[in-house]
Amino acid sequence: MAQEEKAADLSGTIRFVLEIDKLKSVLRKVRPVGEDRYENTAEHSWQIALFALSLAQTLRLPIDVSRTVAMLLVHDIGEIDAGDKFVFAQDGWKEQKAAELRAVERITGLAPEVAAGFLLGLWKEFDAGETPESRFAKAIDRCMPVLLNLSNEGGSWLENGVPYERVIGRVGPEVESGCPELWNYLSQELKEARRKGYFAAPTS
Amino acid sequence: MAQEEKAADLSGTIRFVLEIDKLKSVLRKVRPVGEDRYENTAEHSWQIALFALSLAQTLRLPIDVSRTVAMLLVHDIGEIDAGDKFVFAQDGWKEQKAAELRAVERITGLAPEVAAGFLLGLWKEFDAGETPESRFAKAIDRCMPVLLNLSNEGGSWLENGVPYERVIGRVGPEVESGCPELWNYLSQELKEARRKGYFAAPTS
Repeated sequence: MAQEEKAADLSGTIRFVLEIDKLKSVLRKVRPVGEDRYENTAEHSWQIALFALSLAQTLRLPIDVSRTVAMLLVHDIGEIDAGDKFVFAQDGWKEQKAAELRAVERITGLAPEVAAGFLLGLWKEFDAGETPESRFAKAIDRCMPVLLNLSNEGGSWLENGVPYERVIGRVGPEVESGCPELWNYLSQELKEARRKGYFAAPTS
Repeated sequence: MAQEEKAADLSGTIRFVLEIDKLKSVLRKVRPVGEDRYENTAEHSWQIALFALSLAQTLRLPIDVSRTVAMLLVHDIGEIDAGDKFVFAQDGWKEQKAAELRAVERITGLAPEVAAGFLLGLWKEFDAGETPESRFAKAIDRCMPVLLNLSNEGGSWLENGVPYERVIGRVGPEVESGCPELWNYLSQELKEARRKGYFAAPTS
């Protein structure tokens, strides 16, 4: 019986792992550096997990970075059902979050209970943004597409008519709250980028 | 001065994070489930990190799974310079590993010393495969393309003329050593797949 239970648990875990494969087909609005295609949410999740890991080492942050990394691996899987929503969209965020939560419950529910509860807990902690680990995770998640757009000389900002002020307003508070040193760096880069014309003209 | 050092450290970390962006363009031989395109190494690294995280929970493994996850995030970045090598290639592995190590030293070297040493240490621990955490990481890394090929009714095995026996010989030892329960499951699935004709005919 213990053997049978173990096999059933493995089947469930593997159903989960194959279901999340679909995240490789969810496209975001940002492109990898120098590439024509959009990046997908799976590769984005990898990059920010490794970003968090290395930055926490660099800054010797007194947080449990493995929790941050785990959150970043999970935080977007709801997009499998709900799709990616452009960060500069003005409304519909409440509905998006509700749809993502339903999706995360469905997808983690494929895994055995102990894993499902753990994964759902990570998603909820990230979403709530009340712990230092989740605030750091949000800072990294917000910062990464900015770094890609800076490298792509404006990238999705120019493509989608996003002015400097909207980037500052949308990205600034979460990056600054989760990692002030990172915001200190990024805000300088953003000012320089404005000088270079990487943003759309402000809408009056 | 402390402020300037911090800024320099941040620049280095971000150079590293933008350099690893190139892993999104390294293609493997396996396709996401039901997709025409090949998967890239960045999205693969995400999937196996989350696979390890959920499976360790499921099996309540007495290991430091955050170390496994960190290794899996880093273990393939050498492919940015060295390219992906098909797992069933018969030779050239020593040269491939040497090229990957040079690449990992170059790429992690973009980050500040404390982060570079940490990341390189992860890569070396994975490569050596002497700790339970790295053996579990190798098991997951070997298992994942097998699961994708099973879901794709043979996938890269049929495309590349790989017989059942070669899969067992190449995948079995590392999966079994790193996670016996996983091998128990996978070896049954592989037998069933042989019955269904998912492999190339054995070469005599």
